[in-house]
Amino acid sequence: MTSSTAARRLTPKGQATRDRIAAAAAELMYENGVAGTSTEDILKAARVSSPSQLYHYFGDKKALVQAVIEYQTEHVLGFQRPLLGRLDSFEALQAWRDAVVRAQHARDCRGGCPLGSLAAELSDTDPQARARLVAGYAQWQDAIREGLRAMRERGALDADADPDRLALALLTALQGGLLMTQAHRDTTALETVLDAMIERIRCHATGRA
Amino acid sequence: MTSSTAARRLTPKGQATRDRIAAAAAELMYENGVAGTSTEDILKAARVSSPSQLYHYFGDKKALVQAVIEYQTEHVLGFQRPLLGRLDSFEALQAWRDAVVRAQHARDCRGGCPLGSLAAELSDTDPQARARLVAGYAQWQDAIREGLRAMRERGALDADADPDRLALALLTALQGGLLMTQAHRDTTALETVLDAMIERIRCHATGRA
Repeated sequence: MTSSTAARRLTPKGQATRDRIAAAAAELMYENGVAGTSTEDILKAARVSSPSQLYHYFGDKKALVQAVIEYQTEHVLGFQRPLLGRLDSFEALQAWRDAVVRAQHARDCRGGCPLGSLAAELSDTDPQARARLVAGYAQWQDAIREGLRAMRERGALDADADPDRLALALLTALQGGLLMTQAHRDTTALETVLDAMIERIRCHATGRA
Repeated sequence: MTSSTAARRLTPKGQATRDRIAAAAAELMYENGVAGTSTEDILKAARVSSPSQLYHYFGDKKALVQAVIEYQTEHVLGFQRPLLGRLDSFEALQAWRDAVVRAQHARDCRGGCPLGSLAAELSDTDPQARARLVAGYAQWQDAIREGLRAMRERGALDADADPDRLALALLTALQGGLLMTQAHRDTTALETVLDAMIERIRCHATGRA
């Protein structure tokens, strides 16, 4: 959240204001899309009185969108980290799958993936946003891969298992599942594709824990 | 395309104008999103002089969006139908996978899925659009399922293979792959997830053609 020069120079109070604006913008853009979120909405939600404050912290809407992508990347990985950090057994994969499905029910199957929704809206029109989203996906894929690599290293998966490809396939399947959840307002597609991918990984199971 | 009462009463010339508007709107909304597409843009692209014509054929923007979803459903299924119609062998699945990947390269990996992009933008805010998108996905899933069912019936897949679930998983994986293609401007994720799903289906292969 502190990658820009301006951000590094902020006082604690300034940093808090900046974070509050980013969080409010993230929430509104998740609900209404980037195009559907006005500066006025963000100022109101963040309890900031003047547009000049927004420009002071972010420069322009594109810079704010960058901060929103960083916020959502941390949110997605933060939410999943307790589970992602130990995706190193079939039990852990199953628990993660169940937690992802439960999280969708908790939000009434709305919204889709915070990163995927931004990717769908921005990839073709905002190169900086796209680059930041790609970086977010890379972090996510890394987190999944680590667990699969650990499984292979201790012999739970056979030598043919490719943690890179399996992690990318699982993340991609998840993206499709979250989009279909949003469209169907139902988790059947999400459950089905995650189960299919976990079964695919299970093809490499050696039977050793 | 002719589900509304108004559409059924159109002259051939009126129908042609209506179709031209829907096609122009579909193209613009695919490129710029629904929120990013103005009535003026659509009129200009469709070579229609007066906003009243748009309202004559579609009533309002939401009705136009409905027509766009129908147009894109036909487009997606029409494009894939020659292949979808015979997704009844592993060779056909592989040829379909290759054609999907080639189609992404042909459009420079931009745009994502015409239905998926609309689903991401509209599912939470436009219940009629969401219902129409769900119907489009159902047609798509049906088309995939028919091939898998044929494979099971002639014994190429074992009795444990569930064509319903496998078709839903494959379609969902495809949705994720198309979104990731758009984000990464690269088809690696799409190829990886489709390969993983075809390998998953291959777990049910009996070895009989």
